[in-house]
Amino acid sequence: MKIEYLFKRLHKIYPELVQFRRDLHMYPELSFEEVNTPQKITHYLNDLGLEVKTGVGGRGVVGLLKGGKPGKTVALRADFDALPIQDEKEVEYKSRVPGVMHACGHDIHTAALLGVARVLSEVKEEIEGNVVFIHQFAEEKIPGGAKLMIEDGCLDGVDVIYGAHVWSPEPIGTVGMGEGPMMASMDSFEIEIYGKGGHGATPHVTVDSVVVGSQLVLNLQQIVSRRIDPLKPAVVTVGTFNAGQAFNVISGSAKIIGTVRSFDESVRDLIEESIGKITLSTSKGAGASAKYNYTRGYPAVLNHPEETNRVEKLANVLFEGNKVKRMTPIMGGEDFSYYLQKVPGTFFFIGGGNPEIDAVYPHHNSKFDVDERSMLITGQLFISLVLDYLSEGAINPVQIQESLISKK
Amino acid sequence: MKIEYLFKRLHKIYPELVQFRRDLHMYPELSFEEVNTPQKITHYLNDLGLEVKTGVGGRGVVGLLKGGKPGKTVALRADFDALPIQDEKEVEYKSRVPGVMHACGHDIHTAALLGVARVLSEVKEEIEGNVVFIHQFAEEKIPGGAKLMIEDGCLDGVDVIYGAHVWSPEPIGTVGMGEGPMMASMDSFEIEIYGKGGHGATPHVTVDSVVVGSQLVLNLQQIVSRRIDPLKPAVVTVGTFNAGQAFNVISGSAKIIGTVRSFDESVRDLIEESIGKITLSTSKGAGASAKYNYTRGYPAVLNHPEETNRVEKLANVLFEGNKVKRMTPIMGGEDFSYYLQKVPGTFFFIGGGNPEIDAVYPHHNSKFDVDERSMLITGQLFISLVLDYLSEGAINPVQIQESLISKK
Amino acid sequence: MKIEYLFKRLHKIYPELVQFRRDLHMYPELSFEEVNTPQKITHYLNDLGLEVKTGVGGRGVVGLLKGGKPGKTVALRADFDALPIQDEKEVEYKSRVPGVMHACGHDIHTAALLGVARVLSEVKEEIEGNVVFIHQFAEEKIPGGAKLMIEDGCLDGVDVIYGAHVWSPEPIGTVGMGEGPMMASMDSFEIEIYGKGGHGATPHVTVDSVVVGSQLVLNLQQIVSRRIDPLKPAVVTVGTFNAGQAFNVISGSAKIIGTVRSFDESVRDLIEESIGKITLSTSKGAGASAKYNYTRGYPAVLNHPEETNRVEKLANVLFEGNKVKRMTPIMGGEDFSYYLQKVPGTFFFIGGGNPEIDAVYPHHNSKFDVDERSMLITGQLFISLVLDYLSEGAINPVQIQESLISKK
Amino acid sequence: MKIEYLFKRLHKIYPELVQFRRDLHMYPELSFEEVNTPQKITHYLNDLGLEVKTGVGGRGVVGLLKGGKPGKTVALRADFDALPIQDEKEVEYKSRVPGVMHACGHDIHTAALLGVARVLSEVKEEIEGNVVFIHQFAEEKIPGGAKLMIEDGCLDGVDVIYGAHVWSPEPIGTVGMGEGPMMASMDSFEIEIYGKGGHGATPHVTVDSVVVGSQLVLNLQQIVSRRIDPLKPAVVTVGTFNAGQAFNVISGSAKIIGTVRSFDESVRDLIEESIGKITLSTSKGAGASAKYNYTRGYPAVLNHPEETNRVEKLANVLFEGNKVKRMTPIMGGEDFSYYLQKVPGTFFFIGGGNPEIDAVYPHHNSKFDVDERSMLITGQLFISLVLDYLSEGAINPVQIQESLISKK
Repeated sequence: MKIEYLFKRLHKIYPELVQFRRDLHMYPELSFEEVNTPQKITHYLNDLGLEVKTGVGGRGVVGLLKGGKPGKTVALRADFDALPIQDEKEVEYKSRVPGVMHACGHDIHTAALLGVARVLSEVKEEIEGNVVFIHQFAEEKIPGGAKLMIEDGCLDGVDVIYGAHVWSPEPIGTVGMGEGPMMASMDSFEIEIYGKGGHGATPHVTVDSVVVGSQLVLNLQQIVSRRIDPLKPAVVTVGTFNAGQAFNVISGSAKIIGTVRSFDESVRDLIEESIGKITLSTSKGAGASAKYNYTRGYPAVLNHPEETNRVEKLANVLFEGNKVKRMTPIMGGEDFSYYLQKVPGTFFFIGGGNPEIDAVYPHHNSKFDVDERSMLITGQLFISLVLDYLSEGAINPVQIQESLISKK
Repeated sequence: MKIEYLFKRLHKIYPELVQFRRDLHMYPELSFEEVNTPQKITHYLNDLGLEVKTGVGGRGVVGLLKGGKPGKTVALRADFDALPIQDEKEVEYKSRVPGVMHACGHDIHTAALLGVARVLSEVKEEIEGNVVFIHQFAEEKIPGGAKLMIEDGCLDGVDVIYGAHVWSPEPIGTVGMGEGPMMASMDSFEIEIYGKGGHGATPHVTVDSVVVGSQLVLNLQQIVSRRIDPLKPAVVTVGTFNAGQAFNVISGSAKIIGTVRSFDESVRDLIEESIGKITLSTSKGAGASAKYNYTRGYPAVLNHPEETNRVEKLANVLFEGNKVKRMTPIMGGEDFSYYLQKVPGTFFFIGGGNPEIDAVYPHHNSKFDVDERSMLITGQLFISLVLDYLSEGAINPVQIQESLISKK
Repeated sequence: MKIEYLFKRLHKIYPELVQFRRDLHMYPELSFEEVNTPQKITHYLNDLGLEVKTGVGGRGVVGLLKGGKPGKTVALRADFDALPIQDEKEVEYKSRVPGVMHACGHDIHTAALLGVARVLSEVKEEIEGNVVFIHQFAEEKIPGGAKLMIEDGCLDGVDVIYGAHVWSPEPIGTVGMGEGPMMASMDSFEIEIYGKGGHGATPHVTVDSVVVGSQLVLNLQQIVSRRIDPLKPAVVTVGTFNAGQAFNVISGSAKIIGTVRSFDESVRDLIEESIGKITLSTSKGAGASAKYNYTRGYPAVLNHPEETNRVEKLANVLFEGNKVKRMTPIMGGEDFSYYLQKVPGTFFFIGGGNPEIDAVYPHHNSKFDVDERSMLITGQLFISLVLDYLSEGAINPVQIQESLISKK
Repeated sequence: MKIEYLFKRLHKIYPELVQFRRDLHMYPELSFEEVNTPQKITHYLNDLGLEVKTGVGGRGVVGLLKGGKPGKTVALRADFDALPIQDEKEVEYKSRVPGVMHACGHDIHTAALLGVARVLSEVKEEIEGNVVFIHQFAEEKIPGGAKLMIEDGCLDGVDVIYGAHVWSPEPIGTVGMGEGPMMASMDSFEIEIYGKGGHGATPHVTVDSVVVGSQLVLNLQQIVSRRIDPLKPAVVTVGTFNAGQAFNVISGSAKIIGTVRSFDESVRDLIEESIGKITLSTSKGAGASAKYNYTRGYPAVLNHPEETNRVEKLANVLFEGNKVKRMTPIMGGEDFSYYLQKVPGTFFFIGGGNPEIDAVYPHHNSKFDVDERSMLITGQLFISLVLDYLSEGAINPVQIQESLISKK
């Protein structure tokens, strides 16, 4: 099996992937509400003759490619949910669903992975091992689909997993990766302070929730400034503070909502504990009480060094070296972290920005778009990773280099 | 002229006053929207043969009683506007206007003053001086009717002014007064902080308005704790704090609204100046900017000692001594303050509470009511004050004592 | 007995009083260390033939003048301790004791009261009642001599008490008084915060006492701004904050010391309770602990209205009316408060300032001095108060007026 | 030239190095006060026949070994100053100088480097290039000797530099290194707040410096929590807060001193700017003023990846792999950073802890000591680095491995 051949096949079916991606883009579905998207994926995978499981973990789809020769099992993952954002782009494939949009590129991920599935299934007999195609629902919304799909067995028998995210801040043609902490854990907290309301002119018969809440916000600053190891990144942000209805009435309650990011479970534990402790003591000291809720979102994405090195090695061969780089961690979260808690693997980034086609907006922006050729880059890397892993690094990089179809 | 006679007359017309008050109660009108109320007052005063001016300062009514003998001029004031509150009492004279209610007793003030006008006009020829009946609109809403009526001449030629407020927290039969600061000045402020919004995970590229606002709230506490003479009462209250829309987005702005109370213009000036200075420095130090608006409401009601003593002296004679008392100042505001900036006078309180008729609710409550006999107490005191002032204290207290018609 | 005669006698012995005062001034003694001062006083009173008790409450002296006729008992009080201040005046009677000085005028009080004792003892037979001369030690230092002397019986049988303080901020010839709260209660607090020290570069393994202490200082501001009735004066001041030894070491402890003033026992209780609560919750919330000590000093001096009116009435007769005025309360403290908790009475102020003799410095200043004629004013008022009280107001004010020897 | 031979020579002269080190240990000299230490070093280097410069940058000593063959120039650095700490160890070579002690291991560094100089100078003719021995004064005290020696030319012609620090927290036999940020920049700041002092009972005529200072301390917390990229380590610590003398006097000034650590010059700049801005705005907003001084200490030690890899490679060969590890950065500072701003190089750590000889105390502790065999480890690594660098990696690792004289 020549890897160039696979790349050529991928190139060949690229128009089909574009079409698939644009169909998803026009008919996006929200997290935990996906119905048609998994059906389309299922249909595509069935056509390839894979073993397909549907409703995995709820709405996920898993395709199994059993190679013709014995070997290990590689999983590749793409997520397929969209966001509650109104599409404001002016393109033909603009979302047809009011207030829902693929503003994070999951449509790209899905189509690219389907392309990989098609190409690899065509050479199934030659593959020494198996490939699991994990099409995940609900990445955008806690508790996320990953955890549910894992609980439903999607990683059973899997030896390694790879995931990729198209990335609009970096230009098309680039690849970024990092070992260790790559994306932050992402938690939320909600605090309600109960003071005692009253007339604005008689503070002494009230407990002023605005003042207690303000104290609390300032006290929370000390978690990062004083309680966390300066070498360990952490963020505690109060996103909203709402209290009071009238200028001359002391508010009886205040609501404070925020988010926490970290890369280290012990830091995360310490922050959760500290927020609780500070909330209670601040309230109590002021004669108020408080209700407090901390919700753990996805844990940090911790990439395995060996698999990250594999991505880097292959990307350096496939693409120009100066387009491949180590990235600093990203404070945003991803439920890919759950897969990496179970099996080795890595999560990397595929540049998708291109000013020529106005693909200049950040993720989650109402005008977000990316260069669709990012599907080719993703696909080539996924194919290379599968073969490199299953052959224990025996594929000839030079061989690959000659087939750089997406190289500019 | 025997004062007992006047009191008897007042007693006689009491049913008429009750009827007038209840009519007002059923058809309340909001501040600056009074139309029928001033017409009814005008009609009543015209019937008495007084010189009546309407539309004074906008919607005010002023009746002039010229006494048969030369002398000084005494003004008596009653306000007549209602509040945007839904009447939830179960009485026959409940408000017929949805969402509008005489929840502060201005109907009582008006009817009582009309009764005084009727009684005094009957003995007009014997009076050594003049009496001005000021029926004021819009006491409940800044900038208030008092200022506008004064600008329109209602105090021209006036030597002294008295005003009374029925007071539900004290029982019917009591009278309260105080010299110097009696009611607070009542201002409002509105602050908008402009930071720089952004993702909750990247605070370093934002200016966090929630944190700046919280700092500001705490810094404002120091005005009262450190900058104001401890012997001078002052209140700075932040009533509302609103910032942010999402748990994971750092808010680009925060809105803080509050109120200020004091009894001393220099304290008031200092607070206004301090809020501005603290707002700007707190914002600037954090890299934010701020828009800031301070709105002066009514100044403090500063009662003149001599006239306050006159009320106390007469009340002690008219009523049982233990029902007459010096009150501590009230942190609420009143635009009667504007009259006292022009002429001597005093503003005092007539108990109106009575559990037997469920008159137990605070002012501005949707079930507020008072004992209507408070109109008799008010009327007797007003009549006595007029005669005492015009005769330079020559009316015989004993004479009055015998006529204690409202005494229980 | 003609009161003019008594005033003339007082005038006559004035040089003797000046001499006595200057002797005290040259040989001042610190609170609780008075030895010679009480001996001198005892000697003087013994000479007058009074019944004298020494060592009252420790170091106090009490003289009893039994009048020739039956009647009530009036107490007059003067304190006699000095301060740990170096006298920097350039006068002949400058303190001979290094670092000790009569910088508050207690020497004046003592000499004036001895003069009154002499004058009244000369007409002992005519007096209808008794006079107790309370010479008090240790007013300047908590717990103060007043409490101890009372416990030792100095008020036994006393019906009323008067005290006066010479007052350098007001000019000689003036008299000030006030009813109700006249001088504040004066407490102190001492807080030690125990965090956990460590290297300045590793805050996460420490508990930063400087930050906890700073939070505490700000939280304490809210006692006055939010917890105390705005109509009730109160002060919470942190006087010292000390923490840390080196720029790069996080301090393991912080010491905060301060004072509290109020005029109302319930306010005082609330502040004491609040400081404790806030200290503990602030420390606990930050993972620190705290030791906390609140020491009650003298309670507020609460003057009785009737006796205050008596002082005002007599002062108005004795001196020019415009030199007699009601004062606003003073935030400083006095242990005269303890006497007033037992018997009616009042504590008033005798102007002592005079630029001509450089008597322009505030109390407790190292150049403090007062016009010695304040002893005459004090004496005349004390004599008048005694006679007025014992005669139930029957002394003829006009009679007094003619004898205005100190009138300018 | 066989490298084993050099290691054997080093082993041979080890007793001489121990003797030299103990002599330094007994006669330590403070930073910028070194006199005898540089003389001893000069004497030693002169004996080896090197070109020696003294007084470099003030008190530094530089020895130049010119190899017999042309090539590049490697610099090795050791610092030789001691600390103002009283030696409390019980060893024969305990400091003879009261209050001065080699409590950081600079004596070890110096003796080890001299040993390397001796061994290499013996094979001078065979060396392809040159070696510069930098004996630096005053590392412990800002502005440090490094900067001054560089300005005086010590790096002229140097291609690469290596430095090592003995490290008591890690056991003897271990080696630690890291690329990029290894040690933090270490700055200090000093803030004086000028409020307005006054009586503790009259805050309104003062500007309370304790409150302003407390606000400032809390505001400074927001630099790390909100203004610095969470991925970039930073510390802002207030070490001391001192204000006020008496419990009842409001302090007119407050002094705040602290330290700043970071690994990134832009973070450092931002912190310096932020402290200034926050200090001024906090003071101004409170009506106070402030004087503010920020002193830059050493910049961060930023190790070059290639040279760090070289150390790691050689250490892995020389010592057991599991005793060689990548370290997380250290928040402490070092003026080795200045050398690395000029030429490539790296700064690494040589374990020195050994409970058997009570070498268990942290650096700067009064009982600090290390296992002297750390000089052998340092020496072997230095020799290997010189040869590896000058031969462009051509020395045979296996060859080295056989000579592991210090291996346990």
